[in-house]
Amino acid sequence: MKIAVTGATGYIGNHLVPVLGKEHEVYAIVRDTSDTVGIEAHVKELVVYDRERIYDLLAEAKPEVLIHLAGVFYGEHNAENIANLLESNLVFSTVIFDAAAAAGCRKIINTGTYWQQFSGERYNPVNLYAATKQAAEDILLYYVKAKGCSAVTLQIFDSYGPNDHRNKILNIIKNLEDGAAIDMSPGRQKMYYCHIEDLVSGYLRALSLVNNMEHGTYARYALREEEPKELRVLIEEFLKISGKRLQINWGGRAYRDREIMDPAGIGTVLPGWKPRYGWQQGVKTLLDERYEDI
Amino acid sequence: MKIAVTGATGYIGNHLVPVLGKEHEVYAIVRDTSDTVGIEAHVKELVVYDRERIYDLLAEAKPEVLIHLAGVFYGEHNAENIANLLESNLVFSTVIFDAAAAAGCRKIINTGTYWQQFSGERYNPVNLYAATKQAAEDILLYYVKAKGCSAVTLQIFDSYGPNDHRNKILNIIKNLEDGAAIDMSPGRQKMYYCHIEDLVSGYLRALSLVNNMEHGTYARYALREEEPKELRVLIEEFLKISGKRLQINWGGRAYRDREIMDPAGIGTVLPGWKPRYGWQQGVKTLLDERYEDI
Repeated sequence: MKIAVTGATGYIGNHLVPVLGKEHEVYAIVRDTSDTVGIEAHVKELVVYDRERIYDLLAEAKPEVLIHLAGVFYGEHNAENIANLLESNLVFSTVIFDAAAAAGCRKIINTGTYWQQFSGERYNPVNLYAATKQAAEDILLYYVKAKGCSAVTLQIFDSYGPNDHRNKILNIIKNLEDGAAIDMSPGRQKMYYCHIEDLVSGYLRALSLVNNMEHGTYARYALREEEPKELRVLIEEFLKISGKRLQINWGGRAYRDREIMDPAGIGTVLPGWKPRYGWQQGVKTLLDERYEDI
Repeated sequence: MKIAVTGATGYIGNHLVPVLGKEHEVYAIVRDTSDTVGIEAHVKELVVYDRERIYDLLAEAKPEVLIHLAGVFYGEHNAENIANLLESNLVFSTVIFDAAAAAGCRKIINTGTYWQQFSGERYNPVNLYAATKQAAEDILLYYVKAKGCSAVTLQIFDSYGPNDHRNKILNIIKNLEDGAAIDMSPGRQKMYYCHIEDLVSGYLRALSLVNNMEHGTYARYALREEEPKELRVLIEEFLKISGKRLQINWGGRAYRDREIMDPAGIGTVLPGWKPRYGWQQGVKTLLDERYEDI
């Protein structure tokens, strides 16, 4: 199949595109500033995004499926970053859905976040980032209802794995020197961590699902295991596995504003998919240098 | 009260602002290109929108209520107008909610459309315009849930009245010469028409409601009468009242794509509000030149 992928050079994209590229023609939609080294060998074409030219570019590529991974994340927005947040998560998302649909694409896989469901409600966004994700879903529904697309939104929880250079807690801890001290929240918030390879298999499963859905139908599925675990338990296991000694000052900082303390049961787990990596096995891939820079 | 109003120079704004101005300090948020002649005498201040300066401007004005009327309408979007549609209805809306909330404003009245509910469903957008209205509501809910604002979205159906220079069917017919011919759809779609003075009283009613709502609560209300009427019946009555003779070729053109044929029962009518203008009386205000350019 011909598959257009946004966010192809992000953390998920860098792992998903090489796998997709084995069986499909991948059109990676990138910025002219993106570092495409990790995906170049695996794509049919790099399509450099430009709001006006993207319609012609996709009309030429004629993708059958769009996998929309791109998104900008700010835990807290402000008067300075709000323009970028809206441009990426709302304007870019809409234009990409629109250009893909105009090019005849009728299958879309979109990416959401469990932060759209603070306290488990159908919709209650943790932050403005999560609100833009919900808003993009409602835009996507126009292409489902009015243009006959079938679409799936995959709701992502926390992710981790090798080659992860994002500024996230596991990487911060991994990169600290032995003996270093770090302030953390009390750590009693429960988390779902999903290994990058399980995320990749989730997108592949969604690809097969969306191919078999009727036109004009929509579903939202969660990529998570059954039970969340306390962050504190996860981090302590991480330290044990890695043999790293840190002075973690639990409670040295406050919980995040509107922290989700227990995400248990948020969303419907993607049918026909199960994460293969337990925490112990997953953490090992993160620590094993053979996995780095593959 | 101090009330910030967007879209203050649009059709609703031009009628609402003079009424608000009698009792409140109105801060009209306008573009540097807006024609402000009709509202200047009724506002405390014209605030010229600029994405970066708006935070400071509203921090200075300290509005207690935001009435968000501004919006761009395209019945059909395309690769050319989509940027403007998204900039106005999503980016501008979000930045205004954000800047108002940052300035301490905790009461918001927002404007939606019955086109968010094709075939009466909770959400099924007629067109991308309607999808942007739904998406803006998603964003607004962030300010309700996370920032403790109370907010009301007023769902607007068709509107009409004197001084209406929009390119809408009643104006087109009104401006045709006697004896002229015009192609119309078969005209069997039912419509809710709301007179501009009734819309104004609806916003005033919403203002009093939102002032009494608890922090962090939200409601969406419809500004419509009980029963919709067929467009054909409405137009024929219009011709009778006006004494105009036209050759209307009913069925000479197709219905709009995804035309709402029967909006009966969409939304919950705003409590404590009732339209005062019947069709006959309303049409007379439209035809009476004394009402023009007031």
